[in-house]
Amino acid sequence: MTTETLLTIVDVNKLDCDDFVSIFGNVIEHCSLCAAAVWQHRPFRDVYHIHKLVGDFLDNLPDDGQQGVLRLHPDLVGKVAGALTVESQNEQKAAGIDSLTRDEKEAMQERNTKYRNKFGFPFVICARKNKKDAILEGLKSRLENDIDEEVSNGVEQVKQIALLRLLGIMG
Amino acid sequence: MTTETLLTIVDVNKLDCDDFVSIFGNVIEHCSLCAAAVWQHRPFRDVYHIHKLVGDFLDNLPDDGQQGVLRLHPDLVGKVAGALTVESQNEQKAAGIDSLTRDEKEAMQERNTKYRNKFGFPFVICARKNKKDAILEGLKSRLENDIDEEVSNGVEQVKQIALLRLLGIMG
Repeated sequence: MTTETLLTIVDVNKLDCDDFVSIFGNVIEHCSLCAAAVWQHRPFRDVYHIHKLVGDFLDNLPDDGQQGVLRLHPDLVGKVAGALTVESQNEQKAAGIDSLTRDEKEAMQERNTKYRNKFGFPFVICARKNKKDAILEGLKSRLENDIDEEVSNGVEQVKQIALLRLLGIMG
Repeated sequence: MTTETLLTIVDVNKLDCDDFVSIFGNVIEHCSLCAAAVWQHRPFRDVYHIHKLVGDFLDNLPDDGQQGVLRLHPDLVGKVAGALTVESQNEQKAAGIDSLTRDEKEAMQERNTKYRNKFGFPFVICARKNKKDAILEGLKSRLENDIDEEVSNGVEQVKQIALLRLLGIMG
């Protein structure tokens, strides 16, 4: 999904579906279906219009689809960097997750595992908007929620991640 | 998604989500979200139970999601074989699409293009269940339909393709 230069809305509106999916296919992690669905609604007015459509796609999924979207996200720690998408690697780096101390890493892994065992999907948070301390705190507090709250919180985070990825493509 | 030996339902019910997605992620072409959603409903009774859940996933998508699923499918002719998923390559071969005469290939490409221009998604047909003549005829007749009929026909074909892909994994 990396593009060397930023795309304008004029560029984007010219893309056929295959090219659109190859550029925007990871705006939601591993979920090219979202891009293939959103393409239908062009011409787009601007990047925020595309983001609104991404949000609508997420909101219109049934519960198992929304949980599926969360399950397509990696654990915040645990996966070796090579197994992460480029976007996830950069986002985790921005949050300082690549420079956790051993204790922090253990605490995060323990809470991550608890979270996944409780909800059946990984803890999803917009790493670019949260540094590692906020993430550790978020994990602790969100572990107390029920599953409906966490599907909703997770989807909200996916929308935030999507906006930053869109801005990374279109500026 | 290729597995050397067939998986039993006992094997499948033991898979964590990542492994399930890596094995079943292309049961719907390029749509790993379906596998990530369906995983939620284990334990599965048998392969037909999984197929029913795949069908429910498709049926519960909004219109742009269903059209998005169709758009993630390749054109029947036109893509070089290397750009196709292994599953699509084998299915197209089974239908004899790799051995079209030049005239047949031109006719199929022309109708494919018309179809895509009319509907905004490619013509999707279960190639394992249709030989090249039936596919050429199907293209001709389905071109006459309206878009709602073709979303519905396309989704029905995706379900048939999914069943054969599931049986290829589980026997």
